[in-house]
Amino acid sequence: MEPGPRSRPAEPGPCVSASPSAGAALPASGAEPGSRPAAVAAVLPAGGCGERMGVRTPKQFCRVLGRPLISYTLQALERVCWIKDIVVAVTRENMEEMRNIIQRYGHKRVSLAEAGATRHRSIFNGLKALAEDQPDGKLTKPEVVIIHDAVRPFVDEDILLRVVIAANEHGAAGAIRPLVSTVISPSADGCLDHSLDRAQHRASEMPQAFLFDVIYDAYQQCSDYDLEFGTECLQLALKYCHTKAKLLEGSPDLWKVTYKQDLYAAESMIKEKISQEICVVVNTKDEESVGYLLKEALRNELNCINITSTPLDLPGRDTQNFLMAQCYSFIHVNVVSSDSHETQRFLSIIEESSLPLLYPVVVVLDEQKLQESLQQGASIIGSLVKERSSALAGQLLVA
Amino acid sequence: MEPGPRSRPAEPGPCVSASPSAGAALPASGAEPGSRPAAVAAVLPAGGCGERMGVRTPKQFCRVLGRPLISYTLQALERVCWIKDIVVAVTRENMEEMRNIIQRYGHKRVSLAEAGATRHRSIFNGLKALAEDQPDGKLTKPEVVIIHDAVRPFVDEDILLRVVIAANEHGAAGAIRPLVSTVISPSADGCLDHSLDRAQHRASEMPQAFLFDVIYDAYQQCSDYDLEFGTECLQLALKYCHTKAKLLEGSPDLWKVTYKQDLYAAESMIKEKISQEICVVVNTKDEESVGYLLKEALRNELNCINITSTPLDLPGRDTQNFLMAQCYSFIHVNVVSSDSHETQRFLSIIEESSLPLLYPVVVVLDEQKLQESLQQGASIIGSLVKERSSALAGQLLVA
Repeated sequence: MEPGPRSRPAEPGPCVSASPSAGAALPASGAEPGSRPAAVAAVLPAGGCGERMGVRTPKQFCRVLGRPLISYTLQALERVCWIKDIVVAVTRENMEEMRNIIQRYGHKRVSLAEAGATRHRSIFNGLKALAEDQPDGKLTKPEVVIIHDAVRPFVDEDILLRVVIAANEHGAAGAIRPLVSTVISPSADGCLDHSLDRAQHRASEMPQAFLFDVIYDAYQQCSDYDLEFGTECLQLALKYCHTKAKLLEGSPDLWKVTYKQDLYAAESMIKEKISQEICVVVNTKDEESVGYLLKEALRNELNCINITSTPLDLPGRDTQNFLMAQCYSFIHVNVVSSDSHETQRFLSIIEESSLPLLYPVVVVLDEQKLQESLQQGASIIGSLVKERSSALAGQLLVA
Repeated sequence: MEPGPRSRPAEPGPCVSASPSAGAALPASGAEPGSRPAAVAAVLPAGGCGERMGVRTPKQFCRVLGRPLISYTLQALERVCWIKDIVVAVTRENMEEMRNIIQRYGHKRVSLAEAGATRHRSIFNGLKALAEDQPDGKLTKPEVVIIHDAVRPFVDEDILLRVVIAANEHGAAGAIRPLVSTVISPSADGCLDHSLDRAQHRASEMPQAFLFDVIYDAYQQCSDYDLEFGTECLQLALKYCHTKAKLLEGSPDLWKVTYKQDLYAAESMIKEKISQEICVVVNTKDEESVGYLLKEALRNELNCINITSTPLDLPGRDTQNFLMAQCYSFIHVNVVSSDSHETQRFLSIIEESSLPLLYPVVVVLDEQKLQESLQQGASIIGSLVKERSSALAGQLLVA
């Protein structure tokens, strides 16, 4: 079995459309209370320097499976079709790198703004790029703007939709989570002054959403002190526009990648996600063949939610593209010939495809052996798919 | 190359003594201000049911590399020689499992108490087991008691020492961390009431330490309401004993394993730690041989802090034990004979050893080939050591 091709970067597939359930539950346009407005944009402050991570690379640019963290976050936003524009605020020195990321990973709806010295200044710059009163404004002013963090890659459509609808109704809305630790207030001498009742407080997370006019107005009135030292956008809307934000319970997946252990967690979560989508490619249509049996064994091994099998003789490039767009892991079982012609053809199709591709491609050369010890084979293949170790690419494993 | 033996559970080695720097900086006994008291014990509430993790197993019993999380935490505490007793409070239904864990992983200084219905009741029960006024008390009352969480496995001696010394001086002390998210207070209708100034607040983490008499007194006076709904031990010491706890900045490693992503992070951190300690076993003393070259290549590959090499003909079992106690990963390069006699002998030594052992044992059979492509070999071996996939145990890899 042979994972390969070697040294391919990690690239999950292109955007998919909004989940049918979320789309069906709500009208696609209109701005009545309780519904999603037609024009929604997002602002992503990404000017942070990652000092808390203890590494030089700003955390939004840290690589997870070879791909910068911010690219996963952009992908999560782009998968939501009703978000029209995404403005990313990056520092001047990271502007070029950000442009490369956009090109490399095919991000389509992303515009750049220059980050300010603080998070609030970066968000303000992002909002300015969306405001219609700007002389060089190229974007359309949205009704509602989402503010999200570049380092929260696991945001899903459900919470985005909920904050947008709530913002449309209340003027502002944000995701919250229960506190993991008790919050305390220290006295000046570094001793406990008092501890806060955990049940009465929540952690304010992202995403948040605002009526554009509310948050833009708040930032325009904002004091220099708030722009320098403030942390909470919801507080600005309250202070300057008297808008009380609606608070919505989010999922644990909204957590912010802050420390080294968070990067580890993000990597494992991405690995788990992409190992759920597997395509077994077999060069036979015989459904009794080991390729089809492997499919079932792998489903148990990886708790797969989506595993497809397909014969190699695909009708055309369109079908191949469709196949690859859905999938991050390919397993090819050569069940007909012991020569490598079919296998080479399969690898060529994948190599030549312009679609983003991720490790691994596992090629099973000896289907007889796999048949004999299907469970062990599935376990080894499962491990290769899950761990995605680039060191094992091109490596021949003899079971 | 062949990782094995198959199906071995993950078991890091026995306790090591306190770090020399910490030990040397402070007197080993005596209770003058600023020093560590002679008698220190620890209480670990472990009665939680893990509801936040979204799994049935309580999170302290969740397995990380095959070993329950709580066992890593106990190991971290046992590595600190001056902690005399560790009382773990577990529910009646988990008592038997906890006894098995203690036996299986060779925990030496651990006693059990029955957990209560809440965290505070569990801690109180743990303290009772240490109090001398208990009729069936088998343990000695400590001067200072550490309270820690079973689900914070990365606690190190430095912070334990600092909270104990501060508790000895102030009566109570606890680790704190900066807030990652802004804390807000919701109004009754689920909207933002106000947000807290992040700079004025901290997250209260563990470990904490107390003069035993202070915290035991506090729990004895404690109201039922506090025992049911309170979260903060430091607050009890303040409320009932007017003891203002000293707050000490802890490292990010103190984070609490709460959600699924935290388990992933814990696994990666443990993998990284144990892949730093590698022993290359070679059946030659020739320092020019590929085994010694591999050592250097691996040092680069894994950023190893501790990699030793040793000839196979060790003088005696004592030396072998010493070697294995320090190490979690073995790589054997057979450079003399192509037959497997030497290799079998090496695997037998490891199999027969009573010392805890972890994946992987990598056996290099073809040293000629390794010599030819040392860098690729190191990369593959590095991946096997780092990923520790049990599925690849017993698997022959042909480079």
